Amino acid sequence: MSISISEAAFELELQDFEAAKARIEADVIITPLLSYPTDDRNLLIKAECLQPLGSFKIRAGANAIAMVDKVKLINGVVTASAGNFGQGVTKAAKNRGLDVHVFVPDTASKSKVDSLINLGAKVTSVSFSDWWNIMMNRSAGVDGFFIHPVAELEVIIGNGVIGLEIAAQYPDVDVVVVPFGGGGMISGIALAMKALGKSPTIVACEIESSVPLSAAKNKGRPVQVERGESWIDGIGSTIVLNEMWPLLDALVDEVVIVSHEEAANALRALSNTSNLIAEGAGAVALAAALKPQYSGKNVVAIISGGNINKETHAHIMKGNDLFP
Amino acid sequence: MSISISEAAFELELQDFEAAKARIEADVIITPLLSYPTDDRNLLIKAECLQPLGSFKIRAGANAIAMVDKVKLINGVVTASAGNFGQGVTKAAKNRGLDVHVFVPDTASKSKVDSLINLGAKVTSVSFSDWWNIMMNRSAGVDGFFIHPVAELEVIIGNGVIGLEIAAQYPDVDVVVVPFGGGGMISGIALAMKALGKSPTIVACEIESSVPLSAAKNKGRPVQVERGESWIDGIGSTIVLNEMWPLLDALVDEVVIVSHEEAANALRALSNTSNLIAEGAGAVALAAALKPQYSGKNVVAIISGGNINKETHAHIMKGNDLFP
Repeated sequence: MSISISEAAFELELQDFEAAKARIEADVIITPLLSYPTDDRNLLIKAECLQPLGSFKIRAGANAIAMVDKVKLINGVVTASAGNFGQGVTKAAKNRGLDVHVFVPDTASKSKVDSLINLGAKVTSVSFSDWWNIMMNRSAGVDGFFIHPVAELEVIIGNGVIGLEIAAQYPDVDVVVVPFGGGGMISGIALAMKALGKSPTIVACEIESSVPLSAAKNKGRPVQVERGESWIDGIGSTIVLNEMWPLLDALVDEVVIVSHEEAANALRALSNTSNLIAEGAGAVALAAALKPQYSGKNVVAIISGGNINKETHAHIMKGNDLFP
Repeated sequence: MSISISEAAFELELQDFEAAKARIEADVIITPLLSYPTDDRNLLIKAECLQPLGSFKIRAGANAIAMVDKVKLINGVVTASAGNFGQGVTKAAKNRGLDVHVFVPDTASKSKVDSLINLGAKVTSVSFSDWWNIMMNRSAGVDGFFIHPVAELEVIIGNGVIGLEIAAQYPDVDVVVVPFGGGGMISGIALAMKALGKSPTIVACEIESSVPLSAAKNKGRPVQVERGESWIDGIGSTIVLNEMWPLLDALVDEVVIVSHEEAANALRALSNTSNLIAEGAGAVALAAALKPQYSGKNVVAIISGGNINKETHAHIMKGNDLFP
């Protein structure tokens, strides 16, 4: 009876994204595009780490909760999130007096879990595979309306507002580099820019320890990949969701894999050069945007958030590349 | 023959600030006002640490150099700056192919001096008292056109653009909290807001180790004060400049003194809550804005810059209040 999320997303029009922009205006800021000094390209970083709650995910969280039919929310809201999206949903839900139950993988950073609890969420920590099953099944087996952190049309639309902002702030952009977690952000940005008639090269970036999108692009379909150790959370799943694959197949032009050394260098540069605390996924985007193939281009890198464990950040700032 | 800087500044009109806004548009960003979570006031921080070169001083530097008659610049530019203003002047001058000679006090942080050298300035380090004499005499005894980092009308006008931005971004602001270095920023902001017909409470903040403005306000005239040890540079001189006093006497409504413990707490909060690296003077502004007397108000605090020695920052992030 229902069409897939990908099918619905391909039908989105400019007015859908503009309506979302208006809907979340009070919840978010228009993040600045900051010039990042390089010798050979125009590189601008979109500082989503300056959003309320420190992440772009407030956009989707606020949009998702604002679009759900109120009757469905009578038992509260349930979501599965490594933290940032859960925070956005929690804040938006608490503003409406709703209960929130967030399932997080036991790999989620303590700072993210603490933030959820401070915002008033009930938090349940589960193994990464159990958490991934919740994502796949769209159910955690508890009461409440489930909001999927990636594969919801409302999430894609909310994230698309980033694309509208980039187009307005930097009309000559050639390349947009986006951290790949589940695909909600990169799909939204690409669709919104297409709706505006823009067609920059859309680049997804992954950390070397788990590269599900690179693998899917190579095979032409989602395939299971290893998930190695990393200090970087929020990106790096074990497989691309089937329901997101048609979008990613069509919308993502290139995938760049970043090493931990490059990510650590970028994390330090964001603090030392741009005075920003970024999370690992944001550092991965800067590292990808600095790759030689984008020399001479007008590049925007999305610094997705700043919710990093402070000890991890301090450790890397001291010059360490890998967290033990 | 010439009128004083204070007299000239009192004559400034809205069009002077708007002309400066247009003149420096390509050199600066409109910094975001970011919501800072508190229970009892609406507190917004103006993140000047996100400017190119990491400080508000690019505004005045760019405006000053853009307004000087070209014939006067034949032997280059000389300035005396703890770093941030010197950087702004250097960048703007180098864009025009001019030599720059910057005199800095030997208390200036290494990161600031390194940045100046990287931008192409010749840097001479002198004792704090020699540096202060250069500021007072408006001459360093070397060739080149001297641009004063505080008491130049062009500087006050350039800084005034911050006031225009605040008025546009937050029309209901009640209180504006500004770090007090020499008075160039607070005077510019106050004059620009007055020119717009706005009259928020203008609050200067000082670090406890040197409080020249508090002393001047108490005595009704500039008086010499002790300059104690501090990890905070860029603010904390030993006396208010005579030529700035009439402006400060008239425009500054309140002066708040911040302790090193409060400043360290604010520095940590800016990183942990707002994902920003701030310099000490910016942390002093947040600490002042959190004082009980501003409960219930709409407050803007100017986070002046982010040019802090990285070891100092890391040391304070670990929970230390005072740098040895």
